[in-house]
Amino acid sequence: MVIVFNKNVRSSEVEDVIKKLTELGLNIHKSTDGSRIIINVLGDKRGKDISDIETMSGVLGVHRITEPFLRAGREFRSENTVVAIGDMNIGGDDIAVIAGPCTIESHEQLYSTAKILRKRGIKILRGGAFKPRTSPYSFQGLGREGLKMMREIADKVGMYTISELLDIRDLDLFIGKIDIIQVGARNMNNYPLLKELGSLKKPVLLKRGMSATIEEWLLAAEYLLVNGNPNIILCERGTKSFEPLTRFSLDLASIAIINRKSHLPVIVDPSHSSGNRELVIPMAKAAIAAGAQGIMVEVHINPERAVCDGSQSLYPSQFIGLMDEIDRISAAIGKKVQY
Amino acid sequence: MVIVFNKNVRSSEVEDVIKKLTELGLNIHKSTDGSRIIINVLGDKRGKDISDIETMSGVLGVHRITEPFLRAGREFRSENTVVAIGDMNIGGDDIAVIAGPCTIESHEQLYSTAKILRKRGIKILRGGAFKPRTSPYSFQGLGREGLKMMREIADKVGMYTISELLDIRDLDLFIGKIDIIQVGARNMNNYPLLKELGSLKKPVLLKRGMSATIEEWLLAAEYLLVNGNPNIILCERGTKSFEPLTRFSLDLASIAIINRKSHLPVIVDPSHSSGNRELVIPMAKAAIAAGAQGIMVEVHINPERAVCDGSQSLYPSQFIGLMDEIDRISAAIGKKVQY
Amino acid sequence: MVIVFNKNVRSSEVEDVIKKLTELGLNIHKSTDGSRIIINVLGDKRGKDISDIETMSGVLGVHRITEPFLRAGREFRSENTVVAIGDMNIGGDDIAVIAGPCTIESHEQLYSTAKILRKRGIKILRGGAFKPRTSPYSFQGLGREGLKMMREIADKVGMYTISELLDIRDLDLFIGKIDIIQVGARNMNNYPLLKELGSLKKPVLLKRGMSATIEEWLLAAEYLLVNGNPNIILCERGTKSFEPLTRFSLDLASIAIINRKSHLPVIVDPSHSSGNRELVIPMAKAAIAAGAQGIMVEVHINPERAVCDGSQSLYPSQFIGLMDEIDRISAAIGKKVQY
Amino acid sequence: MVIVFNKNVRSSEVEDVIKKLTELGLNIHKSTDGSRIIINVLGDKRGKDISDIETMSGVLGVHRITEPFLRAGREFRSENTVVAIGDMNIGGDDIAVIAGPCTIESHEQLYSTAKILRKRGIKILRGGAFKPRTSPYSFQGLGREGLKMMREIADKVGMYTISELLDIRDLDLFIGKIDIIQVGARNMNNYPLLKELGSLKKPVLLKRGMSATIEEWLLAAEYLLVNGNPNIILCERGTKSFEPLTRFSLDLASIAIINRKSHLPVIVDPSHSSGNRELVIPMAKAAIAAGAQGIMVEVHINPERAVCDGSQSLYPSQFIGLMDEIDRISAAIGKKVQY
Repeated sequence: MVIVFNKNVRSSEVEDVIKKLTELGLNIHKSTDGSRIIINVLGDKRGKDISDIETMSGVLGVHRITEPFLRAGREFRSENTVVAIGDMNIGGDDIAVIAGPCTIESHEQLYSTAKILRKRGIKILRGGAFKPRTSPYSFQGLGREGLKMMREIADKVGMYTISELLDIRDLDLFIGKIDIIQVGARNMNNYPLLKELGSLKKPVLLKRGMSATIEEWLLAAEYLLVNGNPNIILCERGTKSFEPLTRFSLDLASIAIINRKSHLPVIVDPSHSSGNRELVIPMAKAAIAAGAQGIMVEVHINPERAVCDGSQSLYPSQFIGLMDEIDRISAAIGKKVQY
Repeated sequence: MVIVFNKNVRSSEVEDVIKKLTELGLNIHKSTDGSRIIINVLGDKRGKDISDIETMSGVLGVHRITEPFLRAGREFRSENTVVAIGDMNIGGDDIAVIAGPCTIESHEQLYSTAKILRKRGIKILRGGAFKPRTSPYSFQGLGREGLKMMREIADKVGMYTISELLDIRDLDLFIGKIDIIQVGARNMNNYPLLKELGSLKKPVLLKRGMSATIEEWLLAAEYLLVNGNPNIILCERGTKSFEPLTRFSLDLASIAIINRKSHLPVIVDPSHSSGNRELVIPMAKAAIAAGAQGIMVEVHINPERAVCDGSQSLYPSQFIGLMDEIDRISAAIGKKVQY
Repeated sequence: MVIVFNKNVRSSEVEDVIKKLTELGLNIHKSTDGSRIIINVLGDKRGKDISDIETMSGVLGVHRITEPFLRAGREFRSENTVVAIGDMNIGGDDIAVIAGPCTIESHEQLYSTAKILRKRGIKILRGGAFKPRTSPYSFQGLGREGLKMMREIADKVGMYTISELLDIRDLDLFIGKIDIIQVGARNMNNYPLLKELGSLKKPVLLKRGMSATIEEWLLAAEYLLVNGNPNIILCERGTKSFEPLTRFSLDLASIAIINRKSHLPVIVDPSHSSGNRELVIPMAKAAIAAGAQGIMVEVHINPERAVCDGSQSLYPSQFIGLMDEIDRISAAIGKKVQY
Repeated sequence: MVIVFNKNVRSSEVEDVIKKLTELGLNIHKSTDGSRIIINVLGDKRGKDISDIETMSGVLGVHRITEPFLRAGREFRSENTVVAIGDMNIGGDDIAVIAGPCTIESHEQLYSTAKILRKRGIKILRGGAFKPRTSPYSFQGLGREGLKMMREIADKVGMYTISELLDIRDLDLFIGKIDIIQVGARNMNNYPLLKELGSLKKPVLLKRGMSATIEEWLLAAEYLLVNGNPNIILCERGTKSFEPLTRFSLDLASIAIINRKSHLPVIVDPSHSSGNRELVIPMAKAAIAAGAQGIMVEVHINPERAVCDGSQSLYPSQFIGLMDEIDRISAAIGKKVQY
């Protein structure tokens, strides 16, 4: 942390700041170029409230200069985290593809979709049983029945499962049935949920909040890490912007930034940001080219009959065409898709 | 809902759309000015997934034209909702002021602050016992002890209490001790929490999410209303923006919009958006002038010793000065503060 | 500027950075707490490109810690700038009110509006002759004729004039006719225009760009100041946000921040951000309560016949009612409106 | 346009709206489902101010349902616009690559960079002579000398030129020397500049404004088209967001949206949004995969000596490596780079 003083600061004002820092047990280093005093505060400030210094008399500004996260950072762990789900690895050299419907609607719908996906080589099946819907009048998911159905179908076709946990009280329902627990964008700051999931070892897919900065997102991951769960997959899914023609603005630069700052794998969900299948395809390809460790795409056996988000679900034939392109783009950048 | 077709649409494409709408049980009204076909879709679309129409062949665009909320709107209830907390009313003609520390730190801290506030006429005491902190290394609150302390002190000085509920499993702890349950910005989309609080009659203060549109905020209120709780107070607390000099951008226009679209009362928290007490004072005054039904302000007996958000907490003397101004501004616009 | 290194930085990497800084003629101050090296760079960095240091090997981050503007800041000039327009002062203790139609449409329209405004005590008449319209199909203004009309009417009723300059080649048309030259939000970064206006002494009203940070806005003012024009009035008019129910999000906190960081006066335009006259009134009142040195409001003799922005123009009777409230709110905060 | 009335609207209120629309010469179509009246307004509303209807009594909302642009849209021209620059085509099947330094600094710097680029097959040289700088203290460019130098070098090595025009009064300097005139993000709404460039036939590269929606960007293109210039290349360069770790947020979804809505070619500038060369490379690759018709990349012979934006400039060797990847990604999606 660096504290910068006004040019005309009084020495008593500087002393007050130094006194406060010393009381907090922090070491300081004062420097000046004659016209302005600067104090570097050394050591770990995590857990100490220093916000008040900003408003102390004579202070021009206070600047945090180190990352606020610890365990999620490359300084803590330099090699990439690879999250294993059975024989799949997320975070290694190869690309992981997750696919399936937005919502589990029926056995028939999920089973027919899963068979097509598995045939194309996909091994992780997505599907919502508990849906976070902006409106209380929208379909809220099949719940417990949906999870059961998903496990059964996944076992039959030979796939792993991912589904979103909304309510911390439902955790037990998920344990045996779901291989990757998804924390949705709306719950990225649901700290009781994060703490609970942090106490497990089960893989967690942590979506970026709708208006979370990259640092805030990594701090949410830190909640999981500090509580003991190292198996975290980050998922970029777009953030709010002023543009009305997309639901969310997919921030693909976040991939490169995460890869530099953190050892955690990051994948991209191109479906929820787009709200339109014509956008999902180019954005999925762009995500791979940008260096994402995987993608999670919505596919529906019959999008125009979907009860939720049909407009952003790919037709099976579209998905297969996309995967052919993804295979070629992956090869072009020296990677391959895990099948 | 209005569906607009491309100028060169084929009649079979229009027929496909009409067929889909008819299957959903919706009535339609087709019109044209010769060069372009438009379909008005009549009746209630809530609960029907029509997103797929947007991507049907020949469709230029689909436009939702009515409000997505129902019970929160003025068409459902034209007179203002007034939420009673003992002898206080929020949402009537008079202004409600809530004040207290960001976090309950100790009996001494809360008691001394509460006494000063009560002496100035304030009747609702705020204070966090469970704190939603972006970093897991920050102080997380006194928890259950804090709530107990708060009730005891509030009873002693004669105040009502408001505190934030983070974890749905803690609800029982709040019932007897807290008079208004606060749902924080991070939980505005925590639907299990909203459903649970919707089943009570206890007043709920619902903060606007950090990137929630006004419609999304009212839909969150709709979750409470549809589950049976009419006692909702909305609270504007700022949204994310590109401006680095404020933590959040306080959107005071939301007050006038809410007052026009909804019967629910809306108050303003000028403390969290600012992150700096020098901004809290002008923004509190602006909120009242803009027509807010109340404000919620952080006051700390000793801000420079606060364990959390000290920089945005007012000194008691500042708060008293602010209240004197608030009294005068209220009078200037034909209102008065409830004491 | 502070340069922070990775924990595992090699000493040769630190040396490379120091070499580069030294070549740029900058003084440095190195410190460490054993685990991490930090370099403070002292002296004026303005005009030196140091962006490359951020990407040098071993560097964790580079932090600018002083303000990028100079002449616009309080350290350069501590007392408030007061801009005189005849017998009016903008930036002193008293509040300035500017009013008039969005666009000059006809002699009759402007004259009848001006008479009403003058009768209510308003002394500065706004009106666009050259209009920046998002669509080329929208009315572009009366141009030169409009300016002439405005001067004539203003002289007749005894008012000063403000109008927006779009095209630097039109400057001569403005000189004799317009008392305050307005730089619109779309031109806040039009540097040739700013440089030209900087070479005059005529008052300039500089609107905040639609997505300008406060620092970027003050740097635009710096272009005027450094070229020699001290007569600058800043005008907050709202910035882009994700909220669709307002055109722009009015950032009233900017007033308090400007007042602290800069000596320049700042007023608020509540009309363009709202796009709806029902919002203009509460936001005008809020602006005054927040400490603005003035407001600029659109008033039209017959809003439903306006050729542009009719929905945000106040009816004369609404404006008079608003001014009565503004008078009372001003008194409540110890100020008064200049008449 | 669709006008939706409140459920309890009075028939006189509906009549008032109909009267106003009729006076404006618009045709209407009234429909109802018993509980709510809706009016479709048919015909071309461009150039008519209908904003006031939104605030008329009894009106719940007004919804524009057709695109505000005309000549930029696919309905006006269905086949792709291909802009020819000598033997290069921008907007056809093949990808165009523009490269060069941010700023022209010296003959030696530009010449050595150009030779390397040309050797790698690049045919369009970028370089700023007039620089739009946020701070007046930053280097403002070599001006007229820079343009002369650029033409001379481009002719020598066999390249076309692109450079940014800031000041409409400099247009003559550009005519003979620059093959594509760039309108920067800061000037996307500089209508006098757009009108002047619209009267030429010379290709114009129109960058997206920092907070322009896609519709606003296409309306800026409409200013050029309606004035007679069909040779427009759009350029996505990122928009403002709340994320501090990137300068701008590159919106790659805009490519697919532009390609669907407009016939104009769109390329991507991955350099300015990133502010860091480590991000430029993945974003350039992502842009191609997302379907951009080209990219414009900053390359500097010696980035650490650049006077401007050095941190985002690629080293020549990085650029060559990137082009090899771009070649492979292009092939993977069935395209090739134009050399």
